[in-house]
Amino acid sequence: MELLDKLNWRYAAKAMNGEVVAEDKIERILEAARLAPTSSGLQPFEILVVTNKELKEKIKAVAWNQSVVTDCSHLLVFAAWDTYTADRINKVFDNTNDIRGYKNEGFENYRQMLLNVYPQKDAEENFIHTSKQAYIAFGLATAAAAYEGVDATPMEGFEPDAVDEILGLRAKGLRSTLLLPLGYRDEENDWLVNQVKVRKSKEEFITVID
Amino acid sequence: MELLDKLNWRYAAKAMNGEVVAEDKIERILEAARLAPTSSGLQPFEILVVTNKELKEKIKAVAWNQSVVTDCSHLLVFAAWDTYTADRINKVFDNTNDIRGYKNEGFENYRQMLLNVYPQKDAEENFIHTSKQAYIAFGLATAAAAYEGVDATPMEGFEPDAVDEILGLRAKGLRSTLLLPLGYRDEENDWLVNQVKVRKSKEEFITVID
Repeated sequence: MELLDKLNWRYAAKAMNGEVVAEDKIERILEAARLAPTSSGLQPFEILVVTNKELKEKIKAVAWNQSVVTDCSHLLVFAAWDTYTADRINKVFDNTNDIRGYKNEGFENYRQMLLNVYPQKDAEENFIHTSKQAYIAFGLATAAAAYEGVDATPMEGFEPDAVDEILGLRAKGLRSTLLLPLGYRDEENDWLVNQVKVRKSKEEFITVID
Repeated sequence: MELLDKLNWRYAAKAMNGEVVAEDKIERILEAARLAPTSSGLQPFEILVVTNKELKEKIKAVAWNQSVVTDCSHLLVFAAWDTYTADRINKVFDNTNDIRGYKNEGFENYRQMLLNVYPQKDAEENFIHTSKQAYIAFGLATAAAAYEGVDATPMEGFEPDAVDEILGLRAKGLRSTLLLPLGYRDEENDWLVNQVKVRKSKEEFITVID
């Protein structure tokens, strides 16, 4: 099946049936997120994979009690850096040099440029930027889940501060940004499953300037 | 080839060879973006497809003179709503009702909830939110380009106000958010093409809590 057919198949499941998703599928979905492009390659976010029932219950309570949070198989929590620091930026550049096995002047100048700009910015402004990078990976994870035939529910609807508290994210310099429950749709109990998918028309969405 | 192989194949091309991408491929990449999930299904952004040489030159001048802006085949400009208005929200809900052919009380209550919240917020806060939705679609478009074997260069590096001016976006209630030049890599002139792809290790990127 082609990617577009799979993207048409996907929807934001509102009920899941508790079936467990195979580990190899989960790994490929996470790998798609890891491979996502990010600004300056900084990958300023991490993913927590929650399967623990108690934690899922706690998160559900601060996510408008949406049943998918507990009925999913794996709950992905996208957590972005709370800001950019010199240490975090240097770690990425050092890692790149280690893997590539040499230093490059242009790349080092670029590192310095980032060090001169990001750490001095307001943390909240930086967090908006780190979050946006997580959204790109979230898009890739959503596509990869559909590609694997796994249902997913893209969710912004939760109390981020409460999720940070439940998962101890702030102490790690992270802030929860998005949730992506993965599992399988409960066709009998999901009001959305048989609804027609609605999008803006191509004419409204796209403008060609040639 | 599997999706992950294609995501490993992709990279942010730093030089393109001017070859034109077939229209059917462009259409499938745009369709993936159109199918992207967005908060409350509002799709608060549009895509402009620029092939006009003069416009590409003008945009390049305000995008750090990156050659891919002119050497690409199609330049996608992701432009997000400058804010949420009652009109824009109502249009989405009315369109959904038209397509599905009936009204639903829960859905109408949800519309009212959004109308009570979004239009009253500060435009800048809303624009951050609309932009984030564009980042999800940007992720899907990046994945779809790789799937089609088309190179793409994810770009935040440009002067958004200048691009808004060049394309007359503000008058349409839009603001440029991301650029995605599509085309084919110029293997001989791209310093990045043979570099090893670097990402955080899985261990750093993923934390399993079971």
